[in-house]
Amino acid sequence: MAARHEEIAEELRQAIDRGEYPVGGTLPSESELAARYEVSRGTVRQAVAALTSEGRIGSRQGARRVVLGNRRSQSFAELRSFAQWARAMGRTATGHVIEQHRRPATQEDAERLQITAGEDVLQVLRVRGLDGELVLVERNVYPLWVAEAVERIPADCESVVRALYDDIGIIFAYGEHVIDAIGAGTEDAELLGIRRGGPLLRIRRTTTTHAGRPIEWSDDRYRSGSVSFAIANSIGSNQLVRHVV
Amino acid sequence: MAARHEEIAEELRQAIDRGEYPVGGTLPSESELAARYEVSRGTVRQAVAALTSEGRIGSRQGARRVVLGNRRSQSFAELRSFAQWARAMGRTATGHVIEQHRRPATQEDAERLQITAGEDVLQVLRVRGLDGELVLVERNVYPLWVAEAVERIPADCESVVRALYDDIGIIFAYGEHVIDAIGAGTEDAELLGIRRGGPLLRIRRTTTTHAGRPIEWSDDRYRSGSVSFAIANSIGSNQLVRHVV
Repeated sequence: MAARHEEIAEELRQAIDRGEYPVGGTLPSESELAARYEVSRGTVRQAVAALTSEGRIGSRQGARRVVLGNRRSQSFAELRSFAQWARAMGRTATGHVIEQHRRPATQEDAERLQITAGEDVLQVLRVRGLDGELVLVERNVYPLWVAEAVERIPADCESVVRALYDDIGIIFAYGEHVIDAIGAGTEDAELLGIRRGGPLLRIRRTTTTHAGRPIEWSDDRYRSGSVSFAIANSIGSNQLVRHVV
Repeated sequence: MAARHEEIAEELRQAIDRGEYPVGGTLPSESELAARYEVSRGTVRQAVAALTSEGRIGSRQGARRVVLGNRRSQSFAELRSFAQWARAMGRTATGHVIEQHRRPATQEDAERLQITAGEDVLQVLRVRGLDGELVLVERNVYPLWVAEAVERIPADCESVVRALYDDIGIIFAYGEHVIDAIGAGTEDAELLGIRRGGPLLRIRRTTTTHAGRPIEWSDDRYRSGSVSFAIANSIGSNQLVRHVV
């Protein structure tokens, strides 16, 4: 027979999946849940810890827990977070900051981040590996309101998405992605140990909060043969758009 | 009588279709639209929500909404059809069959087309150009029930999608796409006039009818710097999935 906290965890999962607690909203407080299920707060905490470790709800102690994902939306967090994605597949992700510095925003930064050109932004260059092989060069630009939290993240931190949530409660809610192929530049080639001009899959992305505030924009370059992106569409619903470069 | 927000949604659709708000540009802000139409921001938001759900504009809250597509460029058929897509942008597409022949289905063909290995399939190799420049090598495999209609299509036919519809009423209804980057093989390099190993954007796709019957599977390889694919997603709705190759 399942322990009581396991039963409560399962009921909460089902309530989230039904939309009773929608993604982006909050769960009732621990004491409210304890009253509803007629159990101790310790039992509620065990149930909540299970959902936290699954990435379904936020991990901030004390606060009402934010619902981060349900069965359908889980893949958004996993798409944004290389580390969470790798873990969900049972693989090992590594991440390492090569270089980061603040600099004035260019016109492109200003447009993508909805800030003023010349304002400080934080630029971060990371490499990421999967099961020990380097597969990805990530170039992120963060606006000032995110920069300090990013600067507090250890250089070998696995999940930036998780760290930003734990530190300042940022939830990555919307993404716009542009996918193409390019030849490796000198820096790409050195970082990934491939030849210059070799094929890379590039994903340029802007991610925003629920309120539409840009959190970052990024340029991810994957070594050819490492990952692919899949999408299903239909005559009634097409999200994939082809553009001339 | 249509509600005011529906009238505004329709005016915005027409303005997008006329090119007043071109694809890749932005709509005016909510407050600018509210002033222009002399309605509340809540009414503007309802109109904007309709266009968002149709995939015509980006989903980022608060921001100026990016125009993702107009009536002509956004249909599923036009994503599938290079020629219809190019025409919707006012560009000239060319297509030319390099080689086509029937052969027995491999195990991969059989799985993708839901047929029996060894049954005949039609394999077609085409190149496609945009405004006179070759940008795409297309390799399609068709099951036997489609093959005869494909064989009747002239070698320089612009739109295969249109021809198959006109001839035997095939409607391309569902697509599954896998996107990655690869180095140009010998044949790719010769056909596109690029060097071997140079970066190509590859889209592998299976397309089916409404009933789910596979019409074709294909391997499209775009010259780097010619096209990109864009997709918007959110924590509540994500169609884009990353896979390990």
